[in-house]
Amino acid sequence: MIQIGLVGYGYWGPNLARAAAESDAFALAMVADMSPAALERARRRHPTTRLVTDWRDLVADPRIDAVVIATPVGSHFEIALAALRAGKHVLVEKPMTDSPMTASILVEEAARRSRVLMVDHTFVYTGAVQAIGDLIASGRIGDIYYYDSTRINLGLFQRDVSVIWDLAVHDFAIMDHLLKARPVAISASGACFVPNSPENMAYLSVFFEDGAMAHLNVSWLAPVKVRQTMIGGSQRMIVYDDMQTSEKVKIYDRGVSLSEGQKQAYEHLISYRIGEMSAPVISSREALFTEMDEFARCIQTGAAPVTDGACGLRVVEMLATATRSMALRGQPLELRMERLAS
Amino acid sequence: MIQIGLVGYGYWGPNLARAAAESDAFALAMVADMSPAALERARRRHPTTRLVTDWRDLVADPRIDAVVIATPVGSHFEIALAALRAGKHVLVEKPMTDSPMTASILVEEAARRSRVLMVDHTFVYTGAVQAIGDLIASGRIGDIYYYDSTRINLGLFQRDVSVIWDLAVHDFAIMDHLLKARPVAISASGACFVPNSPENMAYLSVFFEDGAMAHLNVSWLAPVKVRQTMIGGSQRMIVYDDMQTSEKVKIYDRGVSLSEGQKQAYEHLISYRIGEMSAPVISSREALFTEMDEFARCIQTGAAPVTDGACGLRVVEMLATATRSMALRGQPLELRMERLAS
Amino acid sequence: MIQIGLVGYGYWGPNLARAAAESDAFALAMVADMSPAALERARRRHPTTRLVTDWRDLVADPRIDAVVIATPVGSHFEIALAALRAGKHVLVEKPMTDSPMTASILVEEAARRSRVLMVDHTFVYTGAVQAIGDLIASGRIGDIYYYDSTRINLGLFQRDVSVIWDLAVHDFAIMDHLLKARPVAISASGACFVPNSPENMAYLSVFFEDGAMAHLNVSWLAPVKVRQTMIGGSQRMIVYDDMQTSEKVKIYDRGVSLSEGQKQAYEHLISYRIGEMSAPVISSREALFTEMDEFARCIQTGAAPVTDGACGLRVVEMLATATRSMALRGQPLELRMERLAS
Amino acid sequence: MIQIGLVGYGYWGPNLARAAAESDAFALAMVADMSPAALERARRRHPTTRLVTDWRDLVADPRIDAVVIATPVGSHFEIALAALRAGKHVLVEKPMTDSPMTASILVEEAARRSRVLMVDHTFVYTGAVQAIGDLIASGRIGDIYYYDSTRINLGLFQRDVSVIWDLAVHDFAIMDHLLKARPVAISASGACFVPNSPENMAYLSVFFEDGAMAHLNVSWLAPVKVRQTMIGGSQRMIVYDDMQTSEKVKIYDRGVSLSEGQKQAYEHLISYRIGEMSAPVISSREALFTEMDEFARCIQTGAAPVTDGACGLRVVEMLATATRSMALRGQPLELRMERLAS
Repeated sequence: MIQIGLVGYGYWGPNLARAAAESDAFALAMVADMSPAALERARRRHPTTRLVTDWRDLVADPRIDAVVIATPVGSHFEIALAALRAGKHVLVEKPMTDSPMTASILVEEAARRSRVLMVDHTFVYTGAVQAIGDLIASGRIGDIYYYDSTRINLGLFQRDVSVIWDLAVHDFAIMDHLLKARPVAISASGACFVPNSPENMAYLSVFFEDGAMAHLNVSWLAPVKVRQTMIGGSQRMIVYDDMQTSEKVKIYDRGVSLSEGQKQAYEHLISYRIGEMSAPVISSREALFTEMDEFARCIQTGAAPVTDGACGLRVVEMLATATRSMALRGQPLELRMERLAS
Repeated sequence: MIQIGLVGYGYWGPNLARAAAESDAFALAMVADMSPAALERARRRHPTTRLVTDWRDLVADPRIDAVVIATPVGSHFEIALAALRAGKHVLVEKPMTDSPMTASILVEEAARRSRVLMVDHTFVYTGAVQAIGDLIASGRIGDIYYYDSTRINLGLFQRDVSVIWDLAVHDFAIMDHLLKARPVAISASGACFVPNSPENMAYLSVFFEDGAMAHLNVSWLAPVKVRQTMIGGSQRMIVYDDMQTSEKVKIYDRGVSLSEGQKQAYEHLISYRIGEMSAPVISSREALFTEMDEFARCIQTGAAPVTDGACGLRVVEMLATATRSMALRGQPLELRMERLAS
Repeated sequence: MIQIGLVGYGYWGPNLARAAAESDAFALAMVADMSPAALERARRRHPTTRLVTDWRDLVADPRIDAVVIATPVGSHFEIALAALRAGKHVLVEKPMTDSPMTASILVEEAARRSRVLMVDHTFVYTGAVQAIGDLIASGRIGDIYYYDSTRINLGLFQRDVSVIWDLAVHDFAIMDHLLKARPVAISASGACFVPNSPENMAYLSVFFEDGAMAHLNVSWLAPVKVRQTMIGGSQRMIVYDDMQTSEKVKIYDRGVSLSEGQKQAYEHLISYRIGEMSAPVISSREALFTEMDEFARCIQTGAAPVTDGACGLRVVEMLATATRSMALRGQPLELRMERLAS
Repeated sequence: MIQIGLVGYGYWGPNLARAAAESDAFALAMVADMSPAALERARRRHPTTRLVTDWRDLVADPRIDAVVIATPVGSHFEIALAALRAGKHVLVEKPMTDSPMTASILVEEAARRSRVLMVDHTFVYTGAVQAIGDLIASGRIGDIYYYDSTRINLGLFQRDVSVIWDLAVHDFAIMDHLLKARPVAISASGACFVPNSPENMAYLSVFFEDGAMAHLNVSWLAPVKVRQTMIGGSQRMIVYDDMQTSEKVKIYDRGVSLSEGQKQAYEHLISYRIGEMSAPVISSREALFTEMDEFARCIQTGAAPVTDGACGLRVVEMLATATRSMALRGQPLELRMERLAS
């Protein structure tokens, strides 16, 4: 079994610990957290796991095969780099780091040492996103025209990063997984209504090289919780509503087409297609379990994870670029990265 | 009774004709339309109304007191200007004209001749928007932080104007009515997926002088019809869903506040308020009837309509500015107008 | 063109008048109503139609081919019988009469004179019910297990009949159309919360000869309007929600099956099937137009209408039996009729 | 701390174990289950708890203060009676027993020995039901006219009891808690579509002495999951939708009233009230924790629990009576019990 060392037992860490503990491929060997209260919580749930307060002790332990990092984003780079240099495989909470520069250093370090570097973009491993990926791959959606996502709720305000780094990161990871076209520019705008706080609401437009467009509406200051994504294609359109308890993904056989070669008035050329709606069966397996399986598979085979370091880097570049555009009230900024999806 | 001449009996004209015919204040004296088929339809519904093919005959007729214009936007300016110069009161379909320049000429002409110039921003006269206006005026919402609207559906693609001029115009009129702060800049982005067509989907961010923000998501290429607006305030938040058959307007006693003067860690300073939700009774009177009453009242008293020419001009300036920004992929552009709401 | 005489221009009559007037097969020749105000409303909408206050004048007029009856249910029998005896075809508002006895007399009279006797069970002609009928006929639903309908709202209380005669009549007509098994007994219960009024809420269980079951929940005293029907079959299940503006009919590939021949514990024998959901395209044509086409077709060809007098009689027998059971607090009563659906 | 012995670690037992373990008032001292696999699951989650295969060992252990019973309903009586006779307090899974006779014996035994006998009617302890109880107590709802509940889903079919004992039991407990009028008769009907299985769908009408009415629609064979209860009162009406993630309880200021003393036509006497809708804040505390607090409070003070043995007996009498009526196709049967709510 792969011996896991988990750094950070705060909000999300316990979920990663549980997933590691319940997996047949992993053993949760060690947990590091600066907080004695957090370590006490870990002790009650995982009585046989070793506990340390300094992550450096965990990274230095030769019995640890893989390090899972669930600390605040500002510390991801230092811990992940140390873990890779110590020869560990790394699974790091999203976003991978807080700048494209540090993200690319991690990617290079992992490549140099042939270690797995994986980012915990959990949504990519949900049954819903995997079903959407299958639909797109099957050709039933056709060319992708747009990706339009609303991800809003009340709270939780974060002190160190804007809502973009907290919520838009999910959509950038999903887009990176689903869309094959290269994003070329971003225009973002946002606002903050709590003094001395980062932006709590933001709107992001992403332009793709093939003319497709994505748009994200993210907020911590909405009266209701919404998790809805629409994906429009030339053949069909998808509505993915993650707040539904069933039928999260609906496929609409709807669209518009322009008849060519006709000399009639313009309005006669546009025709609308209103066909059946259907909702496929979605796997209800917990995404974190699928993700841990992927981590184990890549450690064992040397394969690149679906959400590998290169993916994590692309997402960080988009986050950083969107943040700069937001400071400029929507000034569009070019993306330099080679390709969104690998 | 005020003698009405209606120019344009196409898609929306019949509704204006019906509202005029059923009002006690008006008589539908005359209808002009170039299309014999349209005039035949008018004849069946309004057998006693005079019908002409040239709007100039209608404008020249001394028996006509007020001209209602429901033609394509490109012709609004010429017809409205001629009507005002002939001493008629004018109610013109939205948007008022296709450029700020022509819009301001109409405003000046109406002022010079002391005629009523009113724009058919129908949504402003709905029970829902009026209830929201009352809520804001009562102070229950507090300071307005944001206005966020989604107005999407499949079709109807228009040949001459982008989706901004067709759908965002509704939100600009509602914002002009509800929000008292001055908008200072717009960043817009959009895309088109039908060749040689104007943009069929667009995203608009509007920045206000007091830090508030508005955002519109408008599209003719969505799989489902959505008409939803959220208005966030310092005291409460509103969700206005026009697709609901009842409880269109919901008020959430929710928000966030930052405790001052405390020396604790940041996260203890933010507190969330999750209180009651309520849905007021909304008048179900047809908005067009309320609007025609307003037109009659202003003709009779000389008062300025709620949606007067100045309002129409502000909306047109916003539409034109958004259109330019969209061509620049979100480049933020300043608005020069004095004030959004009068 | 078939010359129509309409008796009753109150709540529903104007809709029948409009459908007759807009149909190519009919001419709305005459309207009878005791109320001068009703006749004045008819005159404005149908200026060329003859108006009379006594329905006997209409029935006696030799120029009238068919009589449409939209009066209170208590008068249906007398008017319809007179019309049939005068050799007219008859389309009568639902329920056909207020007792099985009078209903069967009408059926016999129509048969004797070879006239069309049709009941205005409008729901049967909606795109939704027709789509459900097609689904059942295709075998995709399998054997029908149950029909479960909720038809509730606030108001309109009626003075002369209970909610059963007002709302359950719709479901009895739909069931008569969709279900081929014979209903054998009814148990109904209800309550009234307005003094000296007929029951305003009622629950009806119908037992079928093949073991299938139907249940109706009807009320004038509900806080919200619900129009939802579930139809469960051995292969698939249907949810028909008439309050939805789109996707009114949804088909769920769900069910349960009992594996046979296995010796395992009982709980392993039951298996659940959770498959795709889909929503077919539903015709949006107004049901009343489809119904008037059916009336014309039957007059012209002598065919029996989908909702003929025999259907009307079966529905009336169910209404009368349910009413008696309700007075006995759910005492089950047998139905004597031969067959529900023809 | 009160030493808890839990009998039954199958489907629901682990939840009771967790609630006991996390409560400050209780210690989970012992678990009994016949299944070694169940005991192994218990051992992993509660490593310090003693495990036995025979519940008699648990009941006989003098260190145990209170016995919690989560076994199939057929064994409740024997275990509970033995526990009471051994001087233990008892919390028993719903329904309390499978017959009124055995239920009343338990009530008498608990009274004779002054032990707490409590039934795990969890729904009564939810924030939603408690908020509804507060609303009714405040008088805002007025006289209760009806309770109408739909509790349907696909599965889980049970081998030994009908859907009435599995699902209607929740509503009977909620009704017993909320409604003060005495139920006097029940009419129930049902059907089964799996051979040699108890009824999987049932409809129950309950008549109250004051004219109020309740109706339950319960099924294991519905395509969608519904948990919706409407409560109509003379002043306001409630819709409680347990499938909503927020605003589970909505209050509608709607109703109908009959003006008295007027001589006008009947239809002018009925007036409808359509006022505001509101949704109160509901406690999101897990119901099981509130319930365990109540169990501890009653053990410590000798008070009767909200869902005491008498409540459990009333619910069992209603279940048994409904079951007999269902076998008679809705034949109404009288209830003999003194009063529904204590």
